Amino acid sequence: MRISELAERGGVPLPTVKYYLREGMLPPGESVSATRADYGEEHVRRLALIRALTDAAGLPLQRVKTILGLIDSPTRSLFEALGGAVAALPPYPDDSRQTPTDGAEYPRARAALEALGQVYDPRFAAVAQLERALAGVEAAGIPMTADRLQTYGRHIRAMAEYDLAKMPADGRAEQLGYAVLGTALYEPVIAALRRLAHQDIAARLLEPDA
Amino acid sequence: MRISELAERGGVPLPTVKYYLREGMLPPGESVSATRADYGEEHVRRLALIRALTDAAGLPLQRVKTILGLIDSPTRSLFEALGGAVAALPPYPDDSRQTPTDGAEYPRARAALEALGQVYDPRFAAVAQLERALAGVEAAGIPMTADRLQTYGRHIRAMAEYDLAKMPADGRAEQLGYAVLGTALYEPVIAALRRLAHQDIAARLLEPDA
Repeated sequence: MRISELAERGGVPLPTVKYYLREGMLPPGESVSATRADYGEEHVRRLALIRALTDAAGLPLQRVKTILGLIDSPTRSLFEALGGAVAALPPYPDDSRQTPTDGAEYPRARAALEALGQVYDPRFAAVAQLERALAGVEAAGIPMTADRLQTYGRHIRAMAEYDLAKMPADGRAEQLGYAVLGTALYEPVIAALRRLAHQDIAARLLEPDA
Repeated sequence: MRISELAERGGVPLPTVKYYLREGMLPPGESVSATRADYGEEHVRRLALIRALTDAAGLPLQRVKTILGLIDSPTRSLFEALGGAVAALPPYPDDSRQTPTDGAEYPRARAALEALGQVYDPRFAAVAQLERALAGVEAAGIPMTADRLQTYGRHIRAMAEYDLAKMPADGRAEQLGYAVLGTALYEPVIAALRRLAHQDIAARLLEPDA
């Protein structure tokens, strides 16, 4: 298809498609003449992924490029690429009041992960995120207890196992796109469902006649 | 105790304590002379709650006042007060690109809640939040399936039941403080634990020898 049809299929303005091509975010089409290139279904899929990352997930363009680079780089293992792609998601360390430094220790996160039988590795971006979150509940006077950690941990692990089981069996772009978008965009779904479950349970406990 | 001791116990500058008193966020002390008032442990607890809501949870002052008003108002049932207090948390409707209007319908949220056997009530703030989150996953090409909804729903409900079981048995301030802070501050804990569970499971699946 021509570039104009690609733009239309993707629901993206033509200048935006040209910008993605110039930036190397979309691979070039196949040259069919000096002034025309031909684009295929893989371009449509890549364009849809870029739109999902920028619009639905709201990621900065620089982070989208990082994720696309991981998709296109065959030198890293899938596990390494997944870790790098998910690390491109907010919250970014600069956003927070505590900026973790290289080799920093995260004592609360370490204790929690060891109690859950998971490996503690301070290079995982989510470790710093967990440390800040645990410091927050501690400061608010509702610190994580061993009992709550095991309860949450069990249920969160079951949800995470479901997520991994549903990961596309092959296609690096599909796998990384699923991991990044599923991580970022299901977090607000889970938060909203939790609030509504609280409300439903509280209604049954506190307003049994309503 | 004197106001200066209250400020010290709370780790809050004296002018801030005076501001909270003027704004009615802290109840007045007991007058012991024309120029001196006496403060008690309930003032220390209230000050700690205000700091947790403003600092740890990062809520705007106007929202903190709403929550304190619900704590101090004995006319509403605990269930109503809990709903009002949690509705004072972000994300706020104005933050999002879609501003829900009164009486708006939230078709995705309605279908999800009905499938989970929960009451759909568009006045619950989290219903609009769920609708936006479900629209996001749909736009990104990873829509909520019936199967995923039941899996997530079961585990989220179990976590929510744990939360309610641990709610203080009495004390309206303690109950509402627990609900608001537990809702807001455990969301990032859950998000970080989910990302780390993904990483742990992916390591076992993809890098069995590592």
